[in-house]
Amino acid sequence: MVKTSVAVGIDIGGTNTVFGFVDRNGKIHGEDSLKTTDYEEVEVFVAALYEKILVTKEKIGAGIEVVGYGIGAPMGNINKGTIEHAADLKWKGIIPLAGLFNKYTTLPVIVTNDANAAAVGEMIYGGAKGMKNFVVITLGTGLGSGFVIDGKLVYGHDGFAGEIGHTAIRPGPSNRDCGCGRKGCLETYVSATGLKRSLLKIMADSNAPSELRKYSFNELDAKVIHDAAVRGDYIAKRAFTHTGRMLGFKLADVVAHTNPEAIFLFGGLALAKDLIFEPAQEYMEENLLSIYKDKVKLLASELSTHNAAVLGASSLIWSNKEL
Amino acid sequence: MVKTSVAVGIDIGGTNTVFGFVDRNGKIHGEDSLKTTDYEEVEVFVAALYEKILVTKEKIGAGIEVVGYGIGAPMGNINKGTIEHAADLKWKGIIPLAGLFNKYTTLPVIVTNDANAAAVGEMIYGGAKGMKNFVVITLGTGLGSGFVIDGKLVYGHDGFAGEIGHTAIRPGPSNRDCGCGRKGCLETYVSATGLKRSLLKIMADSNAPSELRKYSFNELDAKVIHDAAVRGDYIAKRAFTHTGRMLGFKLADVVAHTNPEAIFLFGGLALAKDLIFEPAQEYMEENLLSIYKDKVKLLASELSTHNAAVLGASSLIWSNKEL
Repeated sequence: MVKTSVAVGIDIGGTNTVFGFVDRNGKIHGEDSLKTTDYEEVEVFVAALYEKILVTKEKIGAGIEVVGYGIGAPMGNINKGTIEHAADLKWKGIIPLAGLFNKYTTLPVIVTNDANAAAVGEMIYGGAKGMKNFVVITLGTGLGSGFVIDGKLVYGHDGFAGEIGHTAIRPGPSNRDCGCGRKGCLETYVSATGLKRSLLKIMADSNAPSELRKYSFNELDAKVIHDAAVRGDYIAKRAFTHTGRMLGFKLADVVAHTNPEAIFLFGGLALAKDLIFEPAQEYMEENLLSIYKDKVKLLASELSTHNAAVLGASSLIWSNKEL
Repeated sequence: MVKTSVAVGIDIGGTNTVFGFVDRNGKIHGEDSLKTTDYEEVEVFVAALYEKILVTKEKIGAGIEVVGYGIGAPMGNINKGTIEHAADLKWKGIIPLAGLFNKYTTLPVIVTNDANAAAVGEMIYGGAKGMKNFVVITLGTGLGSGFVIDGKLVYGHDGFAGEIGHTAIRPGPSNRDCGCGRKGCLETYVSATGLKRSLLKIMADSNAPSELRKYSFNELDAKVIHDAAVRGDYIAKRAFTHTGRMLGFKLADVVAHTNPEAIFLFGGLALAKDLIFEPAQEYMEENLLSIYKDKVKLLASELSTHNAAVLGASSLIWSNKEL
C-alpha cells in the first residue's frame, strides 16, 4: 500500500495550539487542538501535544506517513529551533522547542514564527507559487511578516529577520505604547488593535457624528469598525484609511530594501479588502522611488484564514525537502 | 608562463570613470580613468573606455589574463545589465551598458550600482570576509546601500533591491527636497549634503556661537564641518549627531527586515568615526526590538576609500566564479 506523505503543521498561539496532518497539495487529513494556556510547563505541554498528535494519527488510519513536524510559534527561531522571550506565552526565556520535540521523534522538527510559516505556506500552497521574491504580512491582533528572497525564507544572522511590525513609524518620541515595551511601532497602528486605537484618536479630534460613539473601547473590534465603514461611517472610514496609509508607508521601505515581486496581506484586517488595500497601495506608491513605481503587486493571501497557520507550519517541511 | 587572472573593475561616476585590473587578492595591477562628462553619447564613451582599457593592459604586459568586466554605475541593474534613469549621468532612459560592452568582448560583463559593488567588495576583499549576512552603506554626496543575505547580493525581483537612501524618514509632508524628485528621503539627511543641510537648519534655530557662521552654504562641506566638530564647535557637533541619529533610526529597519551580522559604513562621512558612529549606534539600538539589541556590529569598511569603487566593481566577477 502506497502511503500519502504528510507533514504535521503545528501552530502554537497564545491561547490555542492547533495542528493538522497536511499533504504536499495542502489537503488536511486530520486536525485537532489543545489550549496552550492549560500548561504552565513547556515540557508537559509538548508531551500532551505529542500524545494528541498520536491519537489523531491513529484516527486517520494507515494511509498516511508522517515525514516531519513544522511548528509556527511566536518568536520561533529557525536557526536554533527555539522560542525566545515570547511576550504572548507563559514559558519565559529561551525554550528549546525542537529539542523537546526530539525526545519523541527522530523526524525533522522545524520551528519558526507564525508569519514566516505563513510566507512559506503562501509559496507552497498559495498565491506565491512560482514567485522567488515576495513578502507576506499577517494582520491580526498584531502584525507579523515573513520575507522570501531568491526562493528562500530570510532568517538573517540570528534567525529573526523579516519583522516589520516592530519598526518605528517616525524618529523621536511617540505616545503609542507597544506590547514589545517600546513606543510607536508599526504594529501599534497596523493591526486590529491599532485600527481601534486610531479610531479613538480620530473620534477624539473630530466632531463628525459616528455610530461608533456608542461603543466602549472594550466593545470595539475590527469587525464592528469594518461594518460601520461599509455603511459609510466617516470616522470608521478614516480609521481604516489611516491604518492603510501607515502600512503603505512602511511597505515602501520593504520594497526599497528587498524589491519584491509582490506583497501579500493575510489575516482579519486583510479581509477588509479595499478599505485597507487602497490607502496602503496609494501610500506605498507615493513613497517609492520611480524605479519601483507600479511594479509591486499588493495582493490578498490565497490561504484560507481558517487553516492558514497549520498549512504554513506544515509547509516548512515541504520547503525543506527535494520533492 | 602562468598568468595572473584579473578582473577589470570599472566605476562609472557622474564626473569620472575609473578602472583597474584587480587580482583575486585585491591587488591592482594597473589603473586609469577618463572623464564621464566628456561623452554625450554612451556608445562613444564605451568605445573610448574599452580603448583605454586595452592601452593600460598593454602597459601592464603579458603577465595577466582578463577574466571579466565588473561595472559599478548609478542605477546599474544587475538583472538586465542596464543603467536605468540615472539622475547623475547625461545618458537618459535605459542604457544597455553590458550589451554595448559585449560588442568588444565575449567575457562576462556584470553591471550593478556602486553600493552593491561596494558590498561585494567588502565580502571578497574587506571586513565582511566569511560573513553571510551583512549590509554596506556608502556615504558620499548621496547615500547608497547593498544587502548581502545568505552569502549573496540581494537583487530582488527587478534588480533594484538594497536602496535605503530613498526611504522616507517619516510619514506625511517633508520640507527637504531630494534629488530623486521626492522629499524627505534618508539621503537628504544622511550624506555629505545632508550633513550640510542639517547644519544650516540647526544654525538657523540656535543662538550658539559657531566658527561655521562665517561660511557660505557653497563654502561648507563635510570636511569643514568635521574639523569644526573636532575642535568642539557645538553647532557642527549637533549636525553630526543629527545625521548619525537619522542613519541609526533607519538602520533599525534594516535590522528588523534582514537581521544582519554587521553593517559597514563606507565613504567620506564614515571617516568622521565616532562623530557619526556613536549617534548612529545609539539610535539604532534605541529603535531595535529586544531580540536584536547589542548583536549587530556597526563597523567601518575595510576597503580603502581611494580604490574601493574599482575593487568593488572587480569583485562582482570573483563572486560570480567558482574559484
